[in-house]
Amino acid sequence: MTKQKFGLTAKKEEDFSEWYVQVITKGEMIDYYEIKGCYVMRPQGQFVWKCIQKWFTEKIEELGVQECYFPMLVPKSTLEKEKNHVENFSPEVAWITKCGNEVLGDPVAVRPTSETIIYPSFSKWIRSHRDLPLKINQWCSVLRWELHGTLPFIRGKEFLWQEGHTAFLTKEESDVEVFAILDLYSRIYSELLAVPVIKGRKSESEKFGGADYTTSIEAFIPGSGRGIQAGTSHSLGQNFSKMFDIKVDTEEGSENSSFVYQNSWGLTTRSIGIAIMIHSDNLGLVLPPRVAMIQVVVIPCGITASSSEEDVESLRTYISKIHAQLKNFVRVHVDDRNNVTVGFKFNHWEIRGVPLRLEVGFKDMANSEACLVRRDTRAKKQVSVEDIGQTVMEEIDTMHNDMLSRATTERDRRISYVRSFEEFMSSLENKKMIMAPWCGVDKCEANIKSKTTKFGPNGNVVSTGAKTLCIPYEAKSCNGMECINCNQKAIHYALFGRSY
Amino acid sequence: MTKQKFGLTAKKEEDFSEWYVQVITKGEMIDYYEIKGCYVMRPQGQFVWKCIQKWFTEKIEELGVQECYFPMLVPKSTLEKEKNHVENFSPEVAWITKCGNEVLGDPVAVRPTSETIIYPSFSKWIRSHRDLPLKINQWCSVLRWELHGTLPFIRGKEFLWQEGHTAFLTKEESDVEVFAILDLYSRIYSELLAVPVIKGRKSESEKFGGADYTTSIEAFIPGSGRGIQAGTSHSLGQNFSKMFDIKVDTEEGSENSSFVYQNSWGLTTRSIGIAIMIHSDNLGLVLPPRVAMIQVVVIPCGITASSSEEDVESLRTYISKIHAQLKNFVRVHVDDRNNVTVGFKFNHWEIRGVPLRLEVGFKDMANSEACLVRRDTRAKKQVSVEDIGQTVMEEIDTMHNDMLSRATTERDRRISYVRSFEEFMSSLENKKMIMAPWCGVDKCEANIKSKTTKFGPNGNVVSTGAKTLCIPYEAKSCNGMECINCNQKAIHYALFGRSY
Repeated sequence: MTKQKFGLTAKKEEDFSEWYVQVITKGEMIDYYEIKGCYVMRPQGQFVWKCIQKWFTEKIEELGVQECYFPMLVPKSTLEKEKNHVENFSPEVAWITKCGNEVLGDPVAVRPTSETIIYPSFSKWIRSHRDLPLKINQWCSVLRWELHGTLPFIRGKEFLWQEGHTAFLTKEESDVEVFAILDLYSRIYSELLAVPVIKGRKSESEKFGGADYTTSIEAFIPGSGRGIQAGTSHSLGQNFSKMFDIKVDTEEGSENSSFVYQNSWGLTTRSIGIAIMIHSDNLGLVLPPRVAMIQVVVIPCGITASSSEEDVESLRTYISKIHAQLKNFVRVHVDDRNNVTVGFKFNHWEIRGVPLRLEVGFKDMANSEACLVRRDTRAKKQVSVEDIGQTVMEEIDTMHNDMLSRATTERDRRISYVRSFEEFMSSLENKKMIMAPWCGVDKCEANIKSKTTKFGPNGNVVSTGAKTLCIPYEAKSCNGMECINCNQKAIHYALFGRSY
Repeated sequence: MTKQKFGLTAKKEEDFSEWYVQVITKGEMIDYYEIKGCYVMRPQGQFVWKCIQKWFTEKIEELGVQECYFPMLVPKSTLEKEKNHVENFSPEVAWITKCGNEVLGDPVAVRPTSETIIYPSFSKWIRSHRDLPLKINQWCSVLRWELHGTLPFIRGKEFLWQEGHTAFLTKEESDVEVFAILDLYSRIYSELLAVPVIKGRKSESEKFGGADYTTSIEAFIPGSGRGIQAGTSHSLGQNFSKMFDIKVDTEEGSENSSFVYQNSWGLTTRSIGIAIMIHSDNLGLVLPPRVAMIQVVVIPCGITASSSEEDVESLRTYISKIHAQLKNFVRVHVDDRNNVTVGFKFNHWEIRGVPLRLEVGFKDMANSEACLVRRDTRAKKQVSVEDIGQTVMEEIDTMHNDMLSRATTERDRRISYVRSFEEFMSSLENKKMIMAPWCGVDKCEANIKSKTTKFGPNGNVVSTGAKTLCIPYEAKSCNGMECINCNQKAIHYALFGRSY
C-alpha cells in the first residue's frame, strides 16, 4: 500500500471523469474489480459508510424503527406481484438459474430492492391496529444489472444501502414519516458530508414504481454541471398492501378491515461519491472531516542526517505526548516512517484526503507549538499544544462548516431561474440547474428531455436530455406564469437539469 | 405482532426438531420464507447478531483489522483458481446466468465465501514487506445452495457472517493470528452467548478446501446429542498466494520475492442458533442476557376493575421512576398494555426469552420493592428499588454465569472417554460426544463414518455417521495407545460425534 508514486494526472476542471476515477482510486476509497460495475470498497470508503450507518441508525431507533435482515432472493412470481413496480426493475434484474450442476425449475432473482421480499412477512405480522405502526430497516447490498454508465459509488451493479419499510394505520401518519425520513437524509448530507441538498417531490414520470408519490433530496455536482438524486423517501399508499394483503381489522371483532399505508425509503453509498465529487481537488481526495477514518495525521519535521540522537528522541517524546492528547478527541495517526521524506508524506496524506495535518518540528517543540494545516484550503496556522485536542476539534467543525458553505454558494450560483426556453437552453449549456415554471405534465417532461438530448455525428446520444430533478418544496409561487416549454398554465416551479 | 395465542406444543426432550422450530418462530427470532433454506431475521434475532458484531469489531480493530466490502459476484474462472478450494464449494454455488432479458456470456457466481474475490486485490495492494501485515474483514451474507438439511440459523442457503482475510510475511506471524482469532471466537460464545466450546484442529478430511490447516471451536447440543462447528480460523499457508501471485520483495531492490502467508476466518449467525438450542426450554426462548434486545420487562401487577384511579396512577408513577432508573443500566421495556391480562403478559415475554421480569404491584410499591423473576430458573426474589439498576446488572451477570456453568456441566457430562469401539458405539447411541485415541488417518475416519451411519428400511440414510469434530488442543496424552478403530498407533485424542 506504499509506493504511491504519482499525484493526479487529470484536472477537475479539464477532465472531470478521469479526475474522479483518479481521486477515488489513488485516495484508496475504492478499487476496480474484474466485473464491470462492481467495486471494492476499501477501508477508508467503508469507514464513511459506517459513520452514516451509526448516525442514521441512532436517529431511526428514536423513531421506533427496528433492524431486520431479509433474504436476498425472491421468486419470480412474487417479484412480479406489483405491476408498476416490476416494470420499473425488470430490465435490471439478475437471475439465478443454476446451482451447482442443477438447473432450477423456478429461477430466483437477486433483490434489486426488497418490497416484494418483505411485504409477505408484513402480511403475516400485521393483524390488528395494535401491530401498527410497523417499522423496520435493513442494511444490505442490492443488485441492479446496469448496462451502461456504471461509475464507482454513483451507479454500480451492486451497491450498499439501507432500506426502510414501514406500515401505518392512516395516510396521515405515513405522510409524516415520509418527510421525517427525508429530513434525516438531508441532515446526513449537511451534518456529516458537508453537502447541501434540495428537498422536493419527484414528477409523475420520475417517481418510484409502485409509489403514490416519491420525495427526494437532490444534490448538484459543479464539475459536471449535473444534478444527482441523493436519497428517496416513498409513500407507497395502499398499492402494495392491496397486492400483498396487508390489512387490519378496523374495529375489534368487526368484519371491516382496511389496508395499511406503507412507506419505503433508501439511501446508498452514492452519498459518498457525491461528497467526493464536490469537495475533492486537483491534489486528490478531500474528505468531509467528520467522517474521515483518519482526521489528523501528525508528521515529524526537520529531522536530518545531522540531527543528534538526543534531539530526535526528544521530538519523538513531544509527538507522543501530542498523540496521547489528540486520540481522546479525534482519529489520529502519527506517520513516523523513516524510509520516506517529509514531502512524500505530505503528498501521501493529501491524496488520501486526510482533513488536517499537524507538522511538528524542533522549533515548534521549543515553542510548545505545532503547525496545523487544513487539507481543503491548505491554510496553515501555529497552534499551542495546550488544549490541542480542543483546538483540533474546533478546526474540524470550522472546516466542515466552511466546506458546506462553499458548496452551498457554488450550488446556488449554478441555479438559474428562467422564464423562457431560450434561457433554459443556455443555462443548460452553461452547466447549470434550472428553476422553471412548469405544467407538471408527463408528456411535456418527455418533450423537454428529447429537445435537450445531444447527438453525436453518428446519431449516437452523447448527452441525455434534461429532466425534472424534483419539484422543490421551497420555491417561489409561479402564480399566473406559463410552463417554460408548452406554454400551458404552470402549476409549480420545477428543478430541471441533466443528471446522473 | 400481538395475538400470540399458544405456548409451545412440542417438548424439547420429546421432539427436539419441532421444539426448536417453535422456539425460534414463536420467540420472534426468525421467520420462514417462501424459498426453502432462506429465513427472515427478525429484530430480536438481528439484535443478537449486532451485539456480536460490535464486540468482535472492537476486538479485531485492536489487532489492526480494517473493515472492507468486496463484491458479492465472482467470475467462474477466478472462482476456480484454487483447485482444492473450488472442489469444496462447487456443488453449492449459485450461478447468475441472465440479467433482464440478456443471457450472460460468462455466468457469475454469488459468493459462497470470498477468498477468490478478495485475493486479486491483495495481489495489487501488496508489493513490499511494508504493506504487511494486511488485515481486512467484512460483514456480509453468503450463498450456499444446500440441497438438504437446511435449518434456521444452523444451515441456510443464505446466511450472515463475517469473514476475515489477512496476509503476513512469515508463517510464524500468521500462526499467531490463527489462534488469536480462535480465542476471540471462543470468547464470543463464553462471554456473550453463555456457551462453552472446545478448541481444536480439524482432521485432514474435515479441513477447509485450500487451507494448510483449519482450527475450529466446537459446541455440543444436548437436545440432539450432536456436536456442531461453531467457528473456524484457517491457515491458508501459501496456497492462495501462489495461485493469486501475492508476493513481496524480500530485500529492497532484490529479485528475490516470497509469497505471503494467509489466513481466513469466519463466524456466522449459526452461533445464535447454537445458543438458542442450548438454553431454551419448554416455555420457549431463553436468551443469553447480555445479548437480549430487551433485558428486563417491567409488568404492573394487581390492577383490577375495583382499583381506584388514584392507586393506579400512583403505581404508574412508581413504575415510571423504576423505568427511568433502569434504562441507564439495561435495555428495559414497560409492558403497560391494558387490553391483556398479567398472565398473558408473563407468557408473552417468556416465550420471547426476555431474561428478567420485574413484577410491580401495590404491595411492592408500599415496601419500595419489586419482584425480580429470572427467565432461566424462574427463581423469584424481592428486590429494593434503591439501586435497582445495579441490582439488575448484577442479576444479568449471575444469570449469564449460571447459564454458562449449567451448559458446561451438561456438555462435560456428555463427553465419554472411550477405549474400545464397543464403548464408542454405545456412547454414540447415548447421544454423547466421544474422546478417543485416534491414528489421524483419512481412511480410518471414513471407515468410522460408514460404520456409524444408520440406514432406514429402504436403505435411506436416517443418521449420517460420526466423524471427528476436532482434535482438541487440550487433551490427555494417548502415548502407547491404539487407534479406537483401526488399532494402529494412536497419535492423539480426537473428539468424535454426530454433527450438524
